[in-house]
Amino acid sequence: MVSAMAGLPGHAVITEVGPRDGLQSEPVFVPTAQKIALIEALIAAGLRRFEVTSFVSPRAVPQMRDAAQVMAALRGRDGLHLTALVPNERGAEVAIAAGVDALVLFASASESHNLKNVNRSRAASLQGFADIARLARGTGVRLQGAIATAFGCPFEGDVDVQAVVDQAAACRDLGMDHITLGDTTGMATPALVVQRVEALRKVLGDAELALHFHNTRGVGLACVWAGLSMGVTHYESSIGGLGGCPFVPRATGNIATEDLVYLLHESGIGTGTDLDALIGAAQLAQRIVGHELPGQVMKAGPRLRTAGMDSVRTAHG
Amino acid sequence: MVSAMAGLPGHAVITEVGPRDGLQSEPVFVPTAQKIALIEALIAAGLRRFEVTSFVSPRAVPQMRDAAQVMAALRGRDGLHLTALVPNERGAEVAIAAGVDALVLFASASESHNLKNVNRSRAASLQGFADIARLARGTGVRLQGAIATAFGCPFEGDVDVQAVVDQAAACRDLGMDHITLGDTTGMATPALVVQRVEALRKVLGDAELALHFHNTRGVGLACVWAGLSMGVTHYESSIGGLGGCPFVPRATGNIATEDLVYLLHESGIGTGTDLDALIGAAQLAQRIVGHELPGQVMKAGPRLRTAGMDSVRTAHG
Repeated sequence: MVSAMAGLPGHAVITEVGPRDGLQSEPVFVPTAQKIALIEALIAAGLRRFEVTSFVSPRAVPQMRDAAQVMAALRGRDGLHLTALVPNERGAEVAIAAGVDALVLFASASESHNLKNVNRSRAASLQGFADIARLARGTGVRLQGAIATAFGCPFEGDVDVQAVVDQAAACRDLGMDHITLGDTTGMATPALVVQRVEALRKVLGDAELALHFHNTRGVGLACVWAGLSMGVTHYESSIGGLGGCPFVPRATGNIATEDLVYLLHESGIGTGTDLDALIGAAQLAQRIVGHELPGQVMKAGPRLRTAGMDSVRTAHG
Repeated sequence: MVSAMAGLPGHAVITEVGPRDGLQSEPVFVPTAQKIALIEALIAAGLRRFEVTSFVSPRAVPQMRDAAQVMAALRGRDGLHLTALVPNERGAEVAIAAGVDALVLFASASESHNLKNVNRSRAASLQGFADIARLARGTGVRLQGAIATAFGCPFEGDVDVQAVVDQAAACRDLGMDHITLGDTTGMATPALVVQRVEALRKVLGDAELALHFHNTRGVGLACVWAGLSMGVTHYESSIGGLGGCPFVPRATGNIATEDLVYLLHESGIGTGTDLDALIGAAQLAQRIVGHELPGQVMKAGPRLRTAGMDSVRTAHG
């Protein structure tokens, strides 16, 4: 490891999305106790911010039908920041009652993805945000905006940066102090990261920007590096890379938390987490879902876990 | 795709190492005709520079025992640049007779890896370079230096940047006009790339610098991005990510050529290659070796291959 490089932040913040984004992609319902055990392992590894669950229709998303129970096991603990996705006012009411710290309101930057994902227009989604914002006022619960397909749409292709900027501005105007750009189907590239972060800076004001990348085409951590070089300090990831790509059965989805932490620590950027403990949690996640996860550091081990000279075959070049 | 970014090169050069570095890692001998068919597919996709083979003992590396036949099928074609690894004067003689454009002379930046890999000290390897340089003089065949474990050693851990700089200077003094830093076991990080490239600039003179990364811990393309931002324009990769990591059975080795090209093209950096054709070649490589390769773009497809709205399930968030 080298010490922090000029131009890079000294510390980064991670929101772990495996319990929601990751486990929602699994075909089966992961028992509540196992979800909580996984989150406990992640807390023990030093993570503090979690996208815990979604308050959505249990018919539409049965994987998240235990949202209130998972929240009940975690709420009120010191130092944790717990968020949940809510698609509408009903979900927001239940989430607020369940004790979330912030509601995540999501819409896509592309019209066809929004229609496909939540069956309404982008304009209708933004109107829904306003209704939820009214409902949350005075409760102390914060609002976060998540912009899906912020780097490209699987149906429309490229997404105009202005659509992302306008949506971020609308979120800010509704009082959201945190905006996440979601790379929903792995279309982000480092160049697009630089372009979008530059454009967003002009409208974000005091709102915090977070980046959520997928590693579908292998450049997830290159996008993080581009974000870091732009001074962005908040990233979302999922332990072990939980959560596939809904569009390509064999493709990778979310960047793995432990791979992200590896990159950050090896760049001299602190995270407050322990890489070995995260690798252990990734292995727990793998056991819970019962199939191999795409995280790479969990397979290769940390960088300086040296080998015995007799333990390996030579490469001869 | 966005247009070329400020500070990035407009064009990059790729040396394809799959035929040598990749296939050498396979447990079985790939028939000569299949090797040549793979290289032909890569040429058709626009690649021009190949690390074709090694001229080594067929007992030590039986996978490369057809080195002369593979070279015979390729030599003399316009526009190709063909290199081969040679461990000693005997190998160099045969390689020169076989018609290579350049000999690749390799040694590790760490003593224990060099001992393990070629059974001699680093000093003895450098002395061997001098003997080969004398032998090659006047033949018109160029010399390239490859510095293995340039970002870390699996036995010793961190490798002092000064060892890399000194080895590069020794190579330059022997008349090598091309130096490759090899990330032999996937220990490179973007920060180390910046550090090493900065340090090397002072001693390279007119010699070209190439970077060879492994994706063992997921940061291979992030390292490329760091190299690009330092102005390095020459990268080595293997089609489909052929060639595992000799130290971790399930871990990834070389970055995949088509993933590298995806990153470059999406950054506005030309390569002279066709991504779709490279994906086809990666699929051919997969059929040849008979197991799944780690390349990711070959699974997910190019960025703008859009989906029909009925072909996918929704993510609902």
